[in-house]
Amino acid sequence: MKLDEMSTFALEPVGFIRSTVKGRADAPRQGAEGAPDAWLEIEPRFADSLLGMEVGYELIVITWLHEANRDVLQNHPRGDESRPLTGVFYTRSPARPNPLGLHPVTVREIDRARIKIGPIEAFDGTPVVDIKSASTRADVTAD
Amino acid sequence: MKLDEMSTFALEPVGFIRSTVKGRADAPRQGAEGAPDAWLEIEPRFADSLLGMEVGYELIVITWLHEANRDVLQNHPRGDESRPLTGVFYTRSPARPNPLGLHPVTVREIDRARIKIGPIEAFDGTPVVDIKSASTRADVTAD
Repeated sequence: MKLDEMSTFALEPVGFIRSTVKGRADAPRQGAEGAPDAWLEIEPRFADSLLGMEVGYELIVITWLHEANRDVLQNHPRGDESRPLTGVFYTRSPARPNPLGLHPVTVREIDRARIKIGPIEAFDGTPVVDIKSASTRADVTAD
Repeated sequence: MKLDEMSTFALEPVGFIRSTVKGRADAPRQGAEGAPDAWLEIEPRFADSLLGMEVGYELIVITWLHEANRDVLQNHPRGDESRPLTGVFYTRSPARPNPLGLHPVTVREIDRARIKIGPIEAFDGTPVVDIKSASTRADVTAD
């Protein structure tokens, strides 16, 4: 398949975060430290993708940070203006052209198509677009 | 913003991988071991997002695995049918509803809006949709 620079790709939510973190005021300021656990509710049509999931597994959850500003290319790390302006491709700022969030988490509990994961710093209602094993060795398949 | 389950999100490529790995026959079978370095060509309108990038930095590159099968919810790890069928949310298989790839890499060289990164197991022409610092501590900003 040939792709040109005008292509776009459509992501669909595979689930949603249900968290006590309702907005910025509730969010810990630095990474996931002090962040709570949250439920990840998988959309029914993707529930079969959980086969084999177990409590204690380590995952990377990829979210779509739907409230982020997609027009920002540079900002001051941690919003601290004394720090030099930095391109968003060398930050973890939510503001970026495609506002994807990466969250390393542990599975705490499994209840059919809901999994409790944490710690995770993500607002209630945040769409989840992918979930992977955190290990690059365990389960790689060729297709 | 209220999102419902019918929402989709549009990703646009921020760059493309230019690699000697042209297809499956060239690809190392297990993770990034033995994978080559590759150039990541940033789209001109996103070049300002590289400000501050330096050789030696560790990044997470997120690709769109445009050749992956999006209808697969379960498969056999490493394509080995003696292994139990596993949901794609606990594998690193490219096959998954939203075929995002995660690649931890080191910056080897910077040439204006091209950065040489590696090692990376990604086919030539693979679209890149996001780039982040590998550190969750260094540069987090609030917006």
